[in-house]
Amino acid sequence: VTAPPIEWVGDEGGVLRVLDQTLLPNEERRIDLSDVDAAIDAIRRLVVRGAPMIGVAGAYGVHLAVRSDPARDAAAFSSALDAAVSKVGSARPTAVNLKWAVDRVREAAASFRDVASMKRAVFDEAARILDEDRRACDAMASYGVALFRKKERVLTYCNSGALATAGVGTALGVVLEAAKKGLVERAYACETRPLLQGARLTMWELMRSGVDATLLCDNAVAELMRRGGVDRVLVGADRIAANGDAANKIGTFGVALAAAAHGVPFHVVAPLSTIDLETKTGADIPIEERGDDEVLAFRGARAAPEGAKAFCPAFDVTPAKLVASLVTDAGVVERPDEAKVRALFSKARA
Amino acid sequence: VTAPPIEWVGDEGGVLRVLDQTLLPNEERRIDLSDVDAAIDAIRRLVVRGAPMIGVAGAYGVHLAVRSDPARDAAAFSSALDAAVSKVGSARPTAVNLKWAVDRVREAAASFRDVASMKRAVFDEAARILDEDRRACDAMASYGVALFRKKERVLTYCNSGALATAGVGTALGVVLEAAKKGLVERAYACETRPLLQGARLTMWELMRSGVDATLLCDNAVAELMRRGGVDRVLVGADRIAANGDAANKIGTFGVALAAAAHGVPFHVVAPLSTIDLETKTGADIPIEERGDDEVLAFRGARAAPEGAKAFCPAFDVTPAKLVASLVTDAGVVERPDEAKVRALFSKARA
Repeated sequence: VTAPPIEWVGDEGGVLRVLDQTLLPNEERRIDLSDVDAAIDAIRRLVVRGAPMIGVAGAYGVHLAVRSDPARDAAAFSSALDAAVSKVGSARPTAVNLKWAVDRVREAAASFRDVASMKRAVFDEAARILDEDRRACDAMASYGVALFRKKERVLTYCNSGALATAGVGTALGVVLEAAKKGLVERAYACETRPLLQGARLTMWELMRSGVDATLLCDNAVAELMRRGGVDRVLVGADRIAANGDAANKIGTFGVALAAAAHGVPFHVVAPLSTIDLETKTGADIPIEERGDDEVLAFRGARAAPEGAKAFCPAFDVTPAKLVASLVTDAGVVERPDEAKVRALFSKARA
Repeated sequence: VTAPPIEWVGDEGGVLRVLDQTLLPNEERRIDLSDVDAAIDAIRRLVVRGAPMIGVAGAYGVHLAVRSDPARDAAAFSSALDAAVSKVGSARPTAVNLKWAVDRVREAAASFRDVASMKRAVFDEAARILDEDRRACDAMASYGVALFRKKERVLTYCNSGALATAGVGTALGVVLEAAKKGLVERAYACETRPLLQGARLTMWELMRSGVDATLLCDNAVAELMRRGGVDRVLVGADRIAANGDAANKIGTFGVALAAAAHGVPFHVVAPLSTIDLETKTGADIPIEERGDDEVLAFRGARAAPEGAKAFCPAFDVTPAKLVASLVTDAGVVERPDEAKVRALFSKARA
C-alpha cells in the first residue's frame, strides 16, 4: 500500500505529509510541512495542487499557523486565527476551495470561547474537510461512471486525480473508476503546458492503474477529435461560478471549443466546495498569472530567446454553454445554468 | 548583413548552406549540405523546415543527387533523376511544396536531350525556385499588409518567416512587413509544441526585428482572445486543398476554432506552390506522424513516465469555413472555396 499524496501524521502536534508533485514522475519524495510558511510555500510552488487538495492543505496550514499561538483568550486567538486564515487563504487566488476551507476552519472555532477548544476545533475541522473530500470523490466517481454508455475513449486535461484531492480525484477519479469497471478503451491525457501536470501526473496515475493511456500535446486535441478519436471529455475545475461557467487549468477552454466543434460531450467534475455562488459568472473569477519562467523554460531548458516576454495565465474559463453536464458529489446537473446550480445546493442542504 | 538561412554557395559544384534551426535560438550555426543524403537528413530532422523552404531544399537536394551522376545518355540520366526526385520528394509527406519543387526540377530537365544540359537545367531550376519564392514572399507581404485596418495586435502560430522560406516569409513575413509600416501594436507567438518553433524561431525573428513580441503557450490562445487581446490571426500552411482546407502545424486548427468563437479574423498566408489542386479536401491530405520522443520530452528533459505512449501528428487541417481569407502571391481570396481557388490559378496563369 502506497501512502496517500496528502495526509496528517500524528496528533495535533504532528505534520502534514505531502508527496512533492514538482518532482513527479522522476522521483517520489514526501515532505513534512510543520509550519504555516512551509504550507504556503508548498501551495504556491505546486508541491501540492488541485483545487480540493489545496483546500485540505490550506485548512491544515491554518492549524499549523495557530496551534502554538500564545493567545490567552478567545478574542486574541480569534485575531490570530483571522490573520492565519487571511494569509493562507490568499496563497493562490483562483481555486475557491482554498478560501472555502480556511473559512470553514475559522467558523468551526467560532462556536467556542476558550483557546484550547478553539484550537481543537480548527484541527478537527481540517480533518473533517479531508475526510469529506475523500467521500465526495467517491460520490463523483459513482455519478460520473453512470455517464458511460459503452467502452469509451475518454480525454482529460491537467490532473484531477488522487494528486489533486484527498481521495480518488474528480474527473480523473471518474476515469479510473470507469476503467476498473471495464468502461475505458483508452484514456488520453493532454500534457498541459507549461507545468505538464498531464504528462507528469495524470500519465503517472493512469499508468500505475494499468489504464491504456496516451499522451498528447494540448494543441493536438482538435486533430484527435477530427479523426473521431474521443467519445467523452472529463475535466476538473478550480472555481465554478453560480451560472456554471468553470475556471480550470489554462487550456481547458480550448478543449471545450474543440469538443463543441466535434459534438463530443464535455463534462466538468467537481465537488460542491468548488462552486462559488458568490461569483456570478466566469468573468468575475480572478485568474492567477504565473511567472514568465514557467513558459519560457521547462526544467531549466530554455526555449525562447533571452529577454523574451510571456503571457502566463494559469487558468481559463469555459462558458457553461459548452458544458454537457456538471458532475458533483451531490448529483449531476445537465446543461448547467444558475437556477439548476442553486437548486443543486438546495437539494444538498435539505 | 546576416547571411540568409538558406543559400546556394558557389557554382554547380558548390554547397547548399543552411542555418541549423534545431539549434536556435541558443546557437547560430550554418552547415553545408554537399550530398543528397545530407539534404534529406536536414529536411527530416527539421534543420530546414517550413513548406516553401523545404521545397527549395528539395530542389537543390535533387541537384546534389544527380550532379555527379555517371549517366552517359538522356535515358540513363532520366532514370537517375526520377530516382532522386522520388527519394527527395518523400522525405516528408505533408508539405506539398516539396513534391511540387522536385517535380518542377524534373520537368525542367525533360526538354533537353543531353546529360550536361539536363544537369544544368536541374541546377538552374532550383535557383529559379529559390528566387521565385523570395519574390512570392514579397508579394504576400504586400497583399497581407493591406488587410490591416489600424495598429493591430496580431497572433501567429509556428514559424512562417524567413526561417520557413527563401524570402521574408509567409504569415510572419506579413507581420514583419506590417510592423515596419507601424501597423503592429504587438505580436503574439504561440510556442508550438512539441518542437517549439514559435518560442525558438518566431520569437527570435520578431525580437531581432524589434517587434514588441509576447510568447504564449498554445493552450492560452482562447483565454487571450476572451480578454479581447487579439485583432487578427495570420498563419502559414503546408498544403492547401482545392477547396481551401489548409494543413498547417499541429495546433493551428485549435487556434482557428478559438478565433471563430471570438470573431477574430483568421488568415492563411501561403504561395500558390502550397495549394494542391489534386488534393480535393483536407481529408485527403496525408498527415505526418513524428516520433513519440518529441512529445514525451521537452528539449531533452523527459516529462512523462518511462514507457508512456504518445499521439504525435505533426499537422492538422483547418477547414476552409474557418478561414477569413487566403493570402497568396497571386492575390487574396476571401472565404475560400474550390471555385475561388481554381479562379485564382486561372488568373495567375493568364
